[in-house]
Amino acid sequence: MTTQQLTEHIHKKKSFLCIGLDVDLEKIPKHLLQEEDPIYAFNKAIIDATNHLAVAYKPNIAFYEAHGLKGWKALEKTIYYLNENYSEIFTIADAKRGDIGNTSKMYAKTFLEDLNFDSITVAPYMGKDSVEPFLTFDGKYAVLLALTSNEGALDFQTQETKEQALYKKVLETSKNWTNSHNLMYVVGATQAESLKEVRKIVPDSFLLIPGVGAQGGNLQDVCKYGLNSGVGLLVNSSRGIIYASSKEDFAQVAALKAKELQQQMARVLKT
Amino acid sequence: MTTQQLTEHIHKKKSFLCIGLDVDLEKIPKHLLQEEDPIYAFNKAIIDATNHLAVAYKPNIAFYEAHGLKGWKALEKTIYYLNENYSEIFTIADAKRGDIGNTSKMYAKTFLEDLNFDSITVAPYMGKDSVEPFLTFDGKYAVLLALTSNEGALDFQTQETKEQALYKKVLETSKNWTNSHNLMYVVGATQAESLKEVRKIVPDSFLLIPGVGAQGGNLQDVCKYGLNSGVGLLVNSSRGIIYASSKEDFAQVAALKAKELQQQMARVLKT
Repeated sequence: MTTQQLTEHIHKKKSFLCIGLDVDLEKIPKHLLQEEDPIYAFNKAIIDATNHLAVAYKPNIAFYEAHGLKGWKALEKTIYYLNENYSEIFTIADAKRGDIGNTSKMYAKTFLEDLNFDSITVAPYMGKDSVEPFLTFDGKYAVLLALTSNEGALDFQTQETKEQALYKKVLETSKNWTNSHNLMYVVGATQAESLKEVRKIVPDSFLLIPGVGAQGGNLQDVCKYGLNSGVGLLVNSSRGIIYASSKEDFAQVAALKAKELQQQMARVLKT
Repeated sequence: MTTQQLTEHIHKKKSFLCIGLDVDLEKIPKHLLQEEDPIYAFNKAIIDATNHLAVAYKPNIAFYEAHGLKGWKALEKTIYYLNENYSEIFTIADAKRGDIGNTSKMYAKTFLEDLNFDSITVAPYMGKDSVEPFLTFDGKYAVLLALTSNEGALDFQTQETKEQALYKKVLETSKNWTNSHNLMYVVGATQAESLKEVRKIVPDSFLLIPGVGAQGGNLQDVCKYGLNSGVGLLVNSSRGIIYASSKEDFAQVAALKAKELQQQMARVLKT
């Protein structure tokens, strides 16, 4: 998917909502545990109920790996289901990978080619040759960690290097990497004011914004500082949507929660 | 396994060799492709032929995920085989994980508890709360990326922050994290002279040293700058050992290559 197509879907759906599929067997409705594949059954119901309100889904790979073979199978089925039935959806493998070149190449092939995700989150610590292998696929994206939503972001990301804070250095440097047009960036909603700084360095890039909802970030602030002329935002909510109800009505309640966010987004897009 | 036990195994085997299991179906001997599980068959043969020469094995998770369900199964069988038959071996899941707290907790449980690895490599970019979930298991370790062996290490890791280069800041800061006694560190062999600097900050920690062999690092330099009073090193070689022959004799040739390194190590340990 090109970023232009993604932007068109955003305007059509009046939404830049990304729904995080962090599926935890201890949190999903009990009646689903009788299903052959409870994780996939949960995802399918959530996707069917919310796809008209969201432009992106983001399975958090940790939650699938936690179940070994069964988890991996549920992940395969989920991405296949999305690609098969909702080809206008932008998919993000939230995997935070990054390793030496030949290893990053393997991760890139797995997630962007074999599983056929549109994008994957990538950690920048190992630098250029650890990220570039993720940038060689047309219409596929590496979503690079810049400034994350957790407390630990202050440990290193905001440390001043000689020229600028590390996260700015990451943004700045990454612009020079081969195929940098295939980069997006993670910027936590809990760091909304820093979005102003981020936008000075990467005015045109898409930003994936986690941390709205459970982690305390605020959609209004995110929009105020993060929107660009082509929208350029994907705002993720996971737990606030998918675990809004743990009863049989979980998918409908998830849709209601998604709709609340979507309607806020529609108002923003109007102005 | 405690680090004291690991050190005892090092002295007993006169080796601090770690063998990287980066299994690539295009590189393993052709006759293995007829096996039901070629990756596991390859690993089992390599492990059986080399375990008396090595103290650690390090499966590179990317190479298993690349094969989806089959790859994950081969990984499960490999770690189970190691734990069942060679309990004195220290196992490292080379996964470079790291995410917000609840996600890191899932990864930690998967690799350190369910798969029962002794350790996992972890990226520091997201800071304290992204690493600490890996440190809560007695006798299990997070091997934190400090200064890696690839070119991209120069992009951020060696950037000067106000006080010191970023990788030193990572080392320094991580010492204050809860259960920091469960930390080891990745320092690339290609950065051998920096080991002197690393040792000033973490004199007692175990260091995992990749990059000897294919990546151009030198064992003598690594030992000169990296050894501490209790050895404190695990030196990894992957491709140089496991792909030394692509014929039916691959396991014996791997053992010969492992023995060359082990004998150099034995000489170092003697002096």
